[in-house]
Amino acid sequence: MMAYKKIVLAVELSDEGDEELIKQAKEMADQFSADLYLVHAMEHMSSYGAAYGVAAGAEIEDLMMDNARAEMARIAHLLHIPEEHQILKSGPAKFIILEEAEKINADLIMVGSHGRHGIRLLLGSTANAVLHGANCDVLAVRLKQ
Amino acid sequence: MMAYKKIVLAVELSDEGDEELIKQAKEMADQFSADLYLVHAMEHMSSYGAAYGVAAGAEIEDLMMDNARAEMARIAHLLHIPEEHQILKSGPAKFIILEEAEKINADLIMVGSHGRHGIRLLLGSTANAVLHGANCDVLAVRLKQ
Repeated sequence: MMAYKKIVLAVELSDEGDEELIKQAKEMADQFSADLYLVHAMEHMSSYGAAYGVAAGAEIEDLMMDNARAEMARIAHLLHIPEEHQILKSGPAKFIILEEAEKINADLIMVGSHGRHGIRLLLGSTANAVLHGANCDVLAVRLKQ
Repeated sequence: MMAYKKIVLAVELSDEGDEELIKQAKEMADQFSADLYLVHAMEHMSSYGAAYGVAAGAEIEDLMMDNARAEMARIAHLLHIPEEHQILKSGPAKFIILEEAEKINADLIMVGSHGRHGIRLLLGSTANAVLHGANCDVLAVRLKQ
């Protein structure tokens, strides 16, 4: 494999680090004339559901999904990413990201990685899981605090 | 950080996967007009020394170093990398790679990662350690068998 053609960008949506990651993803995609896909997994939905009862859980889920969708649309707009390349699912991030990357046949997954000052050995668990499970290249983007 | 300017390529030297990794590193460096540095750490030298006695250990070390230097020179020639960008040290790979990357002020470390068929969760321990310890971005290149 010589050049990246399909890049999956795993976005956190709720995190300021996204802005830095987005800039980098745009740069990578531009350099390689690659298609960019946004993927985000809403985690912990089932535990919310269990904690608040099914009905309340579903309401919270809808609200969270709406917020996430709006934020993803905002990022997609910045990057000129069409709607069919915006993937929002509920489930554990590592599985969702790897699954979608395989479906798309991505050749690169970009994930943000938070280096904690003084505790450098801690890496975001999602970045770690993605690195370990991916069938394609993984670029861990070190986000500044 | 927008574009990569200094890329550290961690080479195994003894591994066929190097060829693929080298191609990718060349592509990345060309895309970003970045400087490439080759880094290799000779591991287990001290245990060789201890097992064979100091004198034998030193001879083996010299022989291994010579072979490694020749292989690194071959790769450097392919990539047009000047001698001062070829770094060969003895010590644990993860420490050497991270240390040299910091010295150089690298903005990207590229490491090969061996996905083992059926045991995808196993990742090269060096790639893993580098990912966890790096202060810059890390690109794990998934090598085919």
